[in-house]
Amino acid sequence: MNIYLAGPDVFLPDAVEMGRRKAVICARYGVTGRYPLDNVIERAAADVSLQIFKANEAMMDACEAIIANLTPFRGPGADAGTVYELGYMAGRGKLCLGYSNDPTLYADRVRGFTEIEGRDGRLIDRSGLTVEDFGHADNLMMIHALELHGVPLVLPRAKPADLWQDLTAFEVCVRMASEHVAITKNRNML
Amino acid sequence: MNIYLAGPDVFLPDAVEMGRRKAVICARYGVTGRYPLDNVIERAAADVSLQIFKANEAMMDACEAIIANLTPFRGPGADAGTVYELGYMAGRGKLCLGYSNDPTLYADRVRGFTEIEGRDGRLIDRSGLTVEDFGHADNLMMIHALELHGVPLVLPRAKPADLWQDLTAFEVCVRMASEHVAITKNRNML
Repeated sequence: MNIYLAGPDVFLPDAVEMGRRKAVICARYGVTGRYPLDNVIERAAADVSLQIFKANEAMMDACEAIIANLTPFRGPGADAGTVYELGYMAGRGKLCLGYSNDPTLYADRVRGFTEIEGRDGRLIDRSGLTVEDFGHADNLMMIHALELHGVPLVLPRAKPADLWQDLTAFEVCVRMASEHVAITKNRNML
Repeated sequence: MNIYLAGPDVFLPDAVEMGRRKAVICARYGVTGRYPLDNVIERAAADVSLQIFKANEAMMDACEAIIANLTPFRGPGADAGTVYELGYMAGRGKLCLGYSNDPTLYADRVRGFTEIEGRDGRLIDRSGLTVEDFGHADNLMMIHALELHGVPLVLPRAKPADLWQDLTAFEVCVRMASEHVAITKNRNML
């Protein structure tokens, strides 16, 4: 099983090393992790971002599953590029897994960015926009996409000391993906 | 043509009215706008967020196109739920259109949320994470998804006075979707 390793990990100072660490964990469970930075892109090209998109999409198309790092990134919720990729893989009927290293509820996290008040039975932010308050760690579309297209979001009990370097929740996803492979194989042998 | 109207519009104080306004514009161009709040959900149900997800997914599956409102929402980039839906529709091979009412470049917008500095030829934020700097209004995945799965992101020349109420860029998307219908019909008649 080839698994697309999506996440804002590609923006880390040690982005390449992070991909290597994730691939090593995948290999330990008998699956293959494929990481966007595995693609060789000519950084000097005028259309470099288009080349990155095309290479990522081709890599997703070549994978049977995705593990999305949905740890909140530069705001109260997950990284948009990662969320796009999760949606794309769900749309393609692939196995969807994801984790976030921050188990805080979405509404509580929004409070860290803006004032929130209750009005007419809803929570609203300072701009008057409703704050989702369903007891989930992020927007319901990702939460239930994982539930219905794969495996429910994996969360640690508490935030790890290093939000970006801790791979415990990631490893749980890899284990579950590998178990899915084993179940599918057994089913095919019956 | 049925068009799924995705966006954080559902979080506006006048969310229902906004859906009505968008549907009226669609009708004027001979296409049908379908809006998440058209679904009737039992708000008291224990699994209300799951019901919303299922209804949204069924609505997307019943549509041939999506117009995503990618106006930055509660952070430097687009609303995650909307981005998920754009990815899902791209994965399903549907026609993808989107607009943002804020034409600011992503890197410039991030500057409003955190300090940015240049290091080793990259921009990095205060956490040391790279800031995408390809001259786009948001993450490259959405920008090029629109380009390759539909129509490039529609942006106004300047931010309209009301970021959430102005439907000029939305209407451009509707017109382009309707033109796509006309082109497809003509092609089929040849």
